[in-house]
Amino acid sequence: MSVRETVLQALKDSKGQWVSGEALSEVLGVSRTTVWKQVRKLVSDGYEIESSSKKGYRLRVPADLLSPQEVLEGLSTQQFGQNHYFYYQELDSTNNRARELAAEGYPEGTVVAAEMQTAGRGRRGRDWYSPNQEGIYVSVILRPLLPLKEISRVSLLTAVAVAETLATDLNLHPLIKWPNDILINNRKIAGILSEVVTDMDSIEYIVVGIGLNINNFPPDFPHDFRTPATSVQAECQRPLPRVQILQNLLFNLENHYQKLLQGRFGDTLEKAKNLSMVIGREVKIDTLNGFLTGQAVDIDDHGFLLVRDQSGTIHTVMSGEISLLSSPSN
Amino acid sequence: MSVRETVLQALKDSKGQWVSGEALSEVLGVSRTTVWKQVRKLVSDGYEIESSSKKGYRLRVPADLLSPQEVLEGLSTQQFGQNHYFYYQELDSTNNRARELAAEGYPEGTVVAAEMQTAGRGRRGRDWYSPNQEGIYVSVILRPLLPLKEISRVSLLTAVAVAETLATDLNLHPLIKWPNDILINNRKIAGILSEVVTDMDSIEYIVVGIGLNINNFPPDFPHDFRTPATSVQAECQRPLPRVQILQNLLFNLENHYQKLLQGRFGDTLEKAKNLSMVIGREVKIDTLNGFLTGQAVDIDDHGFLLVRDQSGTIHTVMSGEISLLSSPSN
Repeated sequence: MSVRETVLQALKDSKGQWVSGEALSEVLGVSRTTVWKQVRKLVSDGYEIESSSKKGYRLRVPADLLSPQEVLEGLSTQQFGQNHYFYYQELDSTNNRARELAAEGYPEGTVVAAEMQTAGRGRRGRDWYSPNQEGIYVSVILRPLLPLKEISRVSLLTAVAVAETLATDLNLHPLIKWPNDILINNRKIAGILSEVVTDMDSIEYIVVGIGLNINNFPPDFPHDFRTPATSVQAECQRPLPRVQILQNLLFNLENHYQKLLQGRFGDTLEKAKNLSMVIGREVKIDTLNGFLTGQAVDIDDHGFLLVRDQSGTIHTVMSGEISLLSSPSN
Repeated sequence: MSVRETVLQALKDSKGQWVSGEALSEVLGVSRTTVWKQVRKLVSDGYEIESSSKKGYRLRVPADLLSPQEVLEGLSTQQFGQNHYFYYQELDSTNNRARELAAEGYPEGTVVAAEMQTAGRGRRGRDWYSPNQEGIYVSVILRPLLPLKEISRVSLLTAVAVAETLATDLNLHPLIKWPNDILINNRKIAGILSEVVTDMDSIEYIVVGIGLNINNFPPDFPHDFRTPATSVQAECQRPLPRVQILQNLLFNLENHYQKLLQGRFGDTLEKAKNLSMVIGREVKIDTLNGFLTGQAVDIDDHGFLLVRDQSGTIHTVMSGEISLLSSPSN
């Protein structure tokens, strides 16, 4: 452990009580000036530490930073984030950084997390609102030995992992708007941007990026959102620790990804269907080279959406942007 | 024009005759030392220039370098290569360099050409044999506003453009082994590696890389080739200028690409079917997650191969590696 980490651990161990600089310096075997310098560094990293010339130092609230110190302790994945966890106070986009790292050869399971994004991206070049320490902005590098046509499965399993994290661990009721938006009460709480590099046959790598609104106050969301937005805090009526949510998310994501590699995508697909907010509804899909209107009837084994048009013809939709035309049929 | 280009042009204009250093220095208004320095530079760039203290300089053979000076003069494309043409004596791989340039934002039509590749790549991570000045190693950046499912069309149209270049301009009889190998008499003469970056919906960019064997002597090809190789020189029984073949190739590629963007892929598809060496034949396809055996019956409008198995079921194959099991049925 570095001196910085030792100081942080000592402050955490004191569980919100004051610890004198003298005590810290004696226990750690460093000068009081060193303690003070490390505390100042921790504060600049985002930790809320009170200082008092009489009482010493106190870590005010449980730190809720997405730093490796916070996230890796208690992360129960086998691989995701364990060997390569990149953490930034600020990035243009976690997907951009993860793509650079993938191009440099970083392996499957490499995680990139940031406290804020200055150019967070969604599909079709849209912005993803990424204010400092309010959401989770994370990307994971995957290198599956799968043919390109299975790529939509990765998209869908990511959506299931996000929804499961919100449902199981937070008792929320998210739905998946195919292919990979997550909504609660028709408000968007998470988005997924999967970017793939492929030779049209095998997959070189996928960067799966997730933006999840946690402690946002909904009136702060930009007004130009196509879909109204919400956050975990707004839905649960209280702030929630991002660290634990990220740990659960990485665990769930790895779990469903491993199932895919083991040929057990069927389990994930069933969950995706049960969580789907489009199956059974009239939809209009912008496929980039035209609109398709019809009833979404199912998601097939590839993760593609099946849509029945007025003439009864079933169309297989590999990707697109859905508008819902009807209320759910019950 | 730079002094270097002016010297080169003057040597070319003299059409293989000697030009004295004095005459060059007078006409160009530079010192004889400058002329000599520029000639030395041209030689190091690969031009074969004879020097004689009495007679001056002579450009020995028509230069056949893929440099912008050689290729851009007489290149009749509208866009491909016109604004951004990157040329290298040696690269690891033209696709690698083009992907870097695409990531930096270089636009559609940017061309990367190299005289040799030290790590030329084919599909599935295979090597592409790329000896110095014997083949054409070229990559083009494309940024089509198309949904991901149209990606196979780009692959196929590239194959058609390569085949057309060999057929129309050189009177050879190439066939396309779906999706994008080009063979003459069952020997591979060209390979295509299309690499795509996509968010699974729209396409961010495609790098189309082409390796074309021109003046190779077949016994030089490595012995571990899966398919025997051939070259334009071997098929035509004489060496041929690479510059003109590259110019034709870029022109044909742009032509079929523009047709795709204009919604006229049908023309290209017809050519692809006529040039196909797999339609009508028994094939075994390695799809990365299993083998499919059956008869290749058609290529559909997406560029996918339709294969009928023993039970009569038609399978749509988006990508894969084909082994031909039967001779052509006539």
